[in-house]
Amino acid sequence: MPDRIYNFSAGPATLPYEVLVQAAKDIVNFNNIGIGLIEMSHRSKEFIAVVDECESLLRELLAIPDNYKILFLQGGASTQFAMVPMNLLQQGKKATYLNTGTWAKKAIKEAKLFGDIDIAYSSEETVFDRVPLPDEYKAAPGAEYLYFVSNNTIYGTQFHQFPETEADLVCDMSSDILSRSIDVSRFGIIFAGAQKNMGPAGCTVVVIREDLLTKTPENVPTMFRYKTHADKGSMFNTPPCFAIYTIGLVLKWLKNMGGLPVMEKLNHDKAELLYSAIDNSDFYRGHAKFDSRSIMNVTFNLPTPELEAKFIREAADLSLNGLKGHRSVGGCRASIYNAFPREGVKKLVEFMNEFEKKNS
Amino acid sequence: MPDRIYNFSAGPATLPYEVLVQAAKDIVNFNNIGIGLIEMSHRSKEFIAVVDECESLLRELLAIPDNYKILFLQGGASTQFAMVPMNLLQQGKKATYLNTGTWAKKAIKEAKLFGDIDIAYSSEETVFDRVPLPDEYKAAPGAEYLYFVSNNTIYGTQFHQFPETEADLVCDMSSDILSRSIDVSRFGIIFAGAQKNMGPAGCTVVVIREDLLTKTPENVPTMFRYKTHADKGSMFNTPPCFAIYTIGLVLKWLKNMGGLPVMEKLNHDKAELLYSAIDNSDFYRGHAKFDSRSIMNVTFNLPTPELEAKFIREAADLSLNGLKGHRSVGGCRASIYNAFPREGVKKLVEFMNEFEKKNS
Repeated sequence: MPDRIYNFSAGPATLPYEVLVQAAKDIVNFNNIGIGLIEMSHRSKEFIAVVDECESLLRELLAIPDNYKILFLQGGASTQFAMVPMNLLQQGKKATYLNTGTWAKKAIKEAKLFGDIDIAYSSEETVFDRVPLPDEYKAAPGAEYLYFVSNNTIYGTQFHQFPETEADLVCDMSSDILSRSIDVSRFGIIFAGAQKNMGPAGCTVVVIREDLLTKTPENVPTMFRYKTHADKGSMFNTPPCFAIYTIGLVLKWLKNMGGLPVMEKLNHDKAELLYSAIDNSDFYRGHAKFDSRSIMNVTFNLPTPELEAKFIREAADLSLNGLKGHRSVGGCRASIYNAFPREGVKKLVEFMNEFEKKNS
Repeated sequence: MPDRIYNFSAGPATLPYEVLVQAAKDIVNFNNIGIGLIEMSHRSKEFIAVVDECESLLRELLAIPDNYKILFLQGGASTQFAMVPMNLLQQGKKATYLNTGTWAKKAIKEAKLFGDIDIAYSSEETVFDRVPLPDEYKAAPGAEYLYFVSNNTIYGTQFHQFPETEADLVCDMSSDILSRSIDVSRFGIIFAGAQKNMGPAGCTVVVIREDLLTKTPENVPTMFRYKTHADKGSMFNTPPCFAIYTIGLVLKWLKNMGGLPVMEKLNHDKAELLYSAIDNSDFYRGHAKFDSRSIMNVTFNLPTPELEAKFIREAADLSLNGLKGHRSVGGCRASIYNAFPREGVKKLVEFMNEFEKKNS
């Protein structure tokens, strides 16, 4: 392995090195059949096998029931912000949203174009430092669905208890899908951009319960109807081939690692290392409330913005990169998704201790 | 170079070998900075330089005027079928479409959801074997735009004279963009999926005249508004990073080859080789009318479907792959985009001659 930096980027994010090496081989000559992966017809038997394997691994790892379809779409979670209400709402219908951060707010904005939107909870007043417990909100009576963001990348908060409601759950799981075991049967739709825990940018995975495929109003364009893609196994048009292929490699890696139970334990362990460093110091201050802390994105502040800038600069000199917080909140953020190595977290903790000694 | 097949696939399609080799290196370790291309934050200075260079090469090669924006979107041309009318039409407004094949028909279907659609020309009765001359149709008075598909991949036809009309031209150039010099200032919008002449699947390039950015009705979701992406340099949300990067590599290769004038000559030469073989034989029969023949996709039939199947099979044994016609028309199709090597066309012509001798 050449010298690799520790990449704390929030997404696109670090991937397993073996995945990169395999992708590099297949891009030039896929399985040694004399054609590069990214030149192959999406309707070739070779590529269809790639998609089928990716789907089947995802179904296995997330234990997705048979009455759910898996779709590989494009346009990112931001496109889903519109597609969800386009498909499930129409004039006079309503949905409940939980406002726990930037991505939830953006989703709310799009949903308002299509139906009556009820905001049952918001932590905006305290800079989205927490997510609610199930008893802190209720879905509106007759709501078509309750929408929430399972992990808030920017603020470093995460739902550790999913909503308990009769409404279908629709969840933006972009930044923590595959980081822990979940019960998919509690959800109507789960969607996630690939570029954090699953692969490169350019593919959005949608898991949707089959009965929801028939709710779409007639005036919704073909490409924005979930059923279009479900009916054609994500092959209605040319799919994002390279991204799907790479997701498949990441899923194989994940399975070899022991699947979600093992990964969940590793993720908790990595997060615990970092949060302990924060809690054992008066110099570092975590942004998220204790019960809402994310095991994927750890957000923290230093005593001053100047010290934060210095911290980020000196960390980068030690190959600890991407620690700058999102431009909307500032501070520091360490994104430690599935593929982020424990050694990198340890190195960051060591640096934090040294930096504190020198600067406090 | 390992043994490479000649890949006549209509898309995703063959790419320059040196592009594949470079992509393979950068995927593992981009510019030797210790991070893989597909792991880098899209907001890193390294990746922003990638996008900027790609855009600037495209502007240079296509001679795109300053009052046009270049967007790197997702969802394929199929998404543009809806985005164009979503942005440019609304109730009571109309547009003219030329129905020259499957992709035009699909675009017409979506456009009808948003405005009054006038079909000024159709070659459907003769299985889309030709495209019209400028004097064979008129844009409807007051039409917001005239929509056409410059090259019809499935039927092997191509416009050699663009429409002459006062209405803004909107063109699906997915299968012949960058194959020849064009006058961009005659168009309102040009869009193209990357996976034929520009790169891998997963990115759609849109070239749009700036004044069209402000026509979008208010109820169009954020992600489906061209202005959203124009205002943010295609960085409103995470773009399809790998596809944009690879398009950049293809554009560099194209520039090194001598740009569009050289490429256009090479393309005519390759097409001429194949069409001569067809014209000099009673065994092979071209699908497209002479004046409408595409220099990108050469479609032809053999005396019987059985012979066609045998032809495709035996060609594949000689590493001439992907010659099967689209499932909607049958027969044979040789897609010979920019990156398809002349030697492969010569080899196909030799095989055609031999096959004819043995089977006629």
